[in-house]
Order: sequence, then C-alpha cells, then structure tokens
Amino acid sequence: MRAIVLDDHVAVHESRPSPTPADGEVLVRVTCAGICETDLQLIKGYMGFRGVLGHEFVGVAESGPMVGRRVVGEINCACWRCEICRSGLHTHCPNRTVLGILNHDGAFADLIAVPQRNLQVVPDSVPDEVAVFTEPVAAAFQIPAQITVRPQDRVIVLGDGRLGNLCAQVLARLSSDVLVVGKHREKLALLASMGIATALLSDGLDERAADIVVDCTGSDAGLPTALELVRPRGTIVLKTTVAGMQTMALAPFVIDEVTLVGSRCGPFDQALAALEQGQIQVRPLIADRFDLSQGIEALARAQTKPVLKVLLDVN
Amino acid sequence: MRAIVLDDHVAVHESRPSPTPADGEVLVRVTCAGICETDLQLIKGYMGFRGVLGHEFVGVAESGPMVGRRVVGEINCACWRCEICRSGLHTHCPNRTVLGILNHDGAFADLIAVPQRNLQVVPDSVPDEVAVFTEPVAAAFQIPAQITVRPQDRVIVLGDGRLGNLCAQVLARLSSDVLVVGKHREKLALLASMGIATALLSDGLDERAADIVVDCTGSDAGLPTALELVRPRGTIVLKTTVAGMQTMALAPFVIDEVTLVGSRCGPFDQALAALEQGQIQVRPLIADRFDLSQGIEALARAQTKPVLKVLLDVN
Repeated sequence: MRAIVLDDHVAVHESRPSPTPADGEVLVRVTCAGICETDLQLIKGYMGFRGVLGHEFVGVAESGPMVGRRVVGEINCACWRCEICRSGLHTHCPNRTVLGILNHDGAFADLIAVPQRNLQVVPDSVPDEVAVFTEPVAAAFQIPAQITVRPQDRVIVLGDGRLGNLCAQVLARLSSDVLVVGKHREKLALLASMGIATALLSDGLDERAADIVVDCTGSDAGLPTALELVRPRGTIVLKTTVAGMQTMALAPFVIDEVTLVGSRCGPFDQALAALEQGQIQVRPLIADRFDLSQGIEALARAQTKPVLKVLLDVN
Repeated sequence: MRAIVLDDHVAVHESRPSPTPADGEVLVRVTCAGICETDLQLIKGYMGFRGVLGHEFVGVAESGPMVGRRVVGEINCACWRCEICRSGLHTHCPNRTVLGILNHDGAFADLIAVPQRNLQVVPDSVPDEVAVFTEPVAAAFQIPAQITVRPQDRVIVLGDGRLGNLCAQVLARLSSDVLVVGKHREKLALLASMGIATALLSDGLDERAADIVVDCTGSDAGLPTALELVRPRGTIVLKTTVAGMQTMALAPFVIDEVTLVGSRCGPFDQALAALEQGQIQVRPLIADRFDLSQGIEALARAQTKPVLKVLLDVN
C-alpha cells in the first residue's frame, strides 16, 4: 500500500506492506486524513516516532461489526487491563500505543489497523472532509469535560491556529465572552467571520482579568502570557506541549492561587454530534487538499504560516 | 517599642516608634509570635521587604470592639473597594498590604497595627503557644477549601517541615491514605508519632500513583518530584514559592492531564476551630522559645535544619 513513512527522513512509500491487525483490531481503508501540528513536530524528532504518520482520519471499516461503514477512531490504543484502564483512565494507559504517534502505524496510508472499540460510525450527513476533524474537535471538547465554563466567564484563547480556532468555537457555545488572541491577521479574520472576538497579541490586553485562559500557542511563551492574563484564582488550560525543559517563574501560581489544567484528547461522541449538528464550523479551516501520493508537498504546505488545515485525500 | 527590623540587615531595635493605626486598624499588643520560612526568605531579600518582620502572632487588642480580648489576625490587608475585593477575592486584592511581608510592619514587636476586620477572638481554652499557629494551620486548611479530598484518595505531602507537617495533619483528617515524604528522620519521626505514614525521599516510591500530591518542600525540586508521583488526571497542590525563574519540563502536565492548584493563605475560622477542638497538634512542633529581645538568636535557631517552629515571647 501507499504510506507516508517517517524514519531517518519522511517519504512517501509506494509499496509498504499493509498493517496486520492485532487481536481486537480491524483494518480501516482511509479516505481522508488531516495534517496536525503534532505530525510536524514528530518529523522534527518529537517522541522519537518511527513509522507511518497520521492520526486524524476518516475511512471505511474493512471488517468487524462496522464493516462497510464510514468510521473515525480514537487515537489512544489502551490495554484495558491495567489499574489505570480499570480506573476509567484508558486514554492514559501506560501500556498504550497511539495511532501515528507512539508505537503504532498511523493513517497517512491506504490502510490503518485500529482497535475495534476505538471506532465510531460517522453519521451519513457528515462528509469526509468534516468528519476528518473529529479528533481535533474532540480535543477542544475536552476542555468543558475537565472544567466548568459558565456563560459569564471571561475566556481568552491564546493562539489562532488550528486548535485555538476549534477551542474558541467550542468555548463560544458556553461563554458569551470569548476572546482569541493571536499573531496572524488572516487567522483572526476567519475567527471574526465566525462571530468570535479577536485581538492581536501586540494589542494592549487587560492583565489579571480573565477567568479562564486556554494556551493553544504551541510556544513556550504561551504559559507565561496566560499567567499575566488570568485573574487571581482563575484557571489556565494548557494544551501546548513544549518538548524539553522550559524556564519561567512559577511563584505566581501560588501567590495568585491559579489553577493549571493540562488537557489532551477528548470525547469523540461529543465532537461527532457537534459536527453533525453544524455547531462547529471546520470547512473554513481547510486551506488545501493533496492526494496521498503528494504527501511531501502536503506536509510542506502545512508548515507555511498562515495555513490552518491541510487534508490528504487517500482513497 | 521593641521590634525586629529588617533594613540593610536584620536587628532588634529597642526604641522603634509604635505603629500609628490607619483608619479601620487597631493596635494589638503582641504576646507571642512564630517564625516562618517566609521570614527567613525575606531576610534573604525575597519581596524586597523593609520594616518590622513577623506575620504569625497572637496578642491582645488595645482598642476597638475586641479591646482586652486575645486575638489573631489574617495577614492580607485588603482595600475592600476594588473589583477583586468586591468579587470575594480580598486576599488577592491588588492594593493589599501584608503584615510583615508587604508594605506593612509586622508582629515581631511589642505592638502591631491590624485592620479590625482581620481580627478573630481566640477561644479562652486555646493558649497563646497554640493560637500562634492559626496562620499556618489556616494555610493548610486552604487545601480542602480549594480541592475535594475524598477518604480513599492517595495523598502524598512532599516536605516534612513546618507547613508539610500541618498540611499532613489536616489532610489526614480527610483521607485515610496520607504519606509524608521528607529528608529528615527526626521530623518524619514526629509525624509518625502523630499516626501519619512517612517515607524518606531516598526510598523508592510508586510513580504515577498518588491522586493528590502537595508540594511543601520550599525547593524547586518539589514540583518535578510531584509530577513523577501524581497519577494521570491527578492533582498537585503547590504551596512552594521559589523566587525567580525555574527550569523544568512542563509537557507532562498536558500528556498526563495533571491539574496544578496554587495555594496560599487560608480560613482562620476553620483553623481556630480545629485548634480549639484539638484536631491539629501544634505543641510538638515547638522546638524553642526566645524573648523578643533575643530575636537574632531566635532567627538563627529557626534556620538550623531539624528545627520546626521557633516562637518569640513578646509580652
């Protein structure tokens, strides 16, 4: 099969062996996949991943109870046997593999092996180019799964990229006071067209006034900025992962009694329902589409700055 | 009056002018005061404080509705007018002074001026040497004021010092599984004598197993250790303030979806009630007592390592 493979370098392979499904796994024929910031980080060496890239996908199940149906799949493949799994925290299973990220070949390929229990059927009314956003939309829905967002809460989303956009859309359904702070006028203009308030980071912002600040910057400058903007006893949701060590003043967390909530993968069912009901707009984020065979060009395009989402059409 | 004054150096002054109470403040004749880690940090330059040291005290009100009564006092002196105060966060008032810490002379003196509304009457059954612990005990009670601690929660307190001891005692009333991890055999032995489980930091500890980890180390090594010990989606309560910048890996907060809660001052009413009911043992923490005039010796004694609490007898 065809696949975008990362080893010493990243390349499109034309005849990689198809994956062999393990116990409980089924093959999914990928129809569409999305390029995520994490993919770009993996190529730079993050996590030391080697194998087929890609974890945002929609496809058709080739076997199992959903055979022939369009499906999306949660990316964490848990053992379901350890203490962590049995306590309900299977996305944190210490024995887990992660599609296209950790010890599991990913979705930038004709076929991917996915645990059956990770799959969810895509409603007929949700086209592939929308369903492929289920994973990042779920990550945005993880925020209200972890913290209470009240209608009157002042919410600031730091970062106008792919994830910042989706988090802002999810949070704007809960609070009437969501502000996205970014650096890119085009990306902020897109958010404004969706009815979400925006500001440039270089604009003056009220310090210590936000009830909730969500760091989607992907930069080590995000968290210190969040600490300046959050009010005493406010909450910072940290979506940004920075590889390696980071240097900053942590005493303000204590002095201002700030709560920091690390936030990662989220509920696919809520994301699919929101996409089906048109609550979250994802099509305006699509900047470009490439055939899988043009994977290298697609990855290069995803790294150009004003671009939000680049899709790969696979089958 | 006599006072321990910090300017270019710390010294006992024999004839410092008595403080002049501002509007809403009353004079309190100090009977007993406690030396806290923060006092030692201030002497090293933390916060740039200049003035009379001391914020843990018990005394007798010289005026106001509590005249002649024994009182303790909350240390944050708020404006009660700003938006933060009106929102109920007066301990975070941006215009606040803090007794013996920020722009307000403290309690290592014959007299201290304290806002009337900060004072609470000490029950007759609580002697001075116990009541003087109200402030640090309140800081320990701030933890259950901020997070839910369930009976079955695995709780680790990092740090066997003054604050670690009191936090462990408060938390051991809520959870049946509290472990204090420290470096000092004598301090751990004291906790063990109170019925609290202890371990040396150099012992092997289960990683990623604690529901709640409280960092009372006062060291920049505390938080990285807490991150190793807390389970995925667990909570770290940060009591440690480290001056300046700190370098550590923050990605585990996101990957393991850990919550960090900064925690500072707490409820005096709960602390006084717990001391009155004998729920928290503080007398075993008293290592030494000095007269105010021997303040320099007292501060030196408080800096010696196995010592928990040094008291100053004032009047």
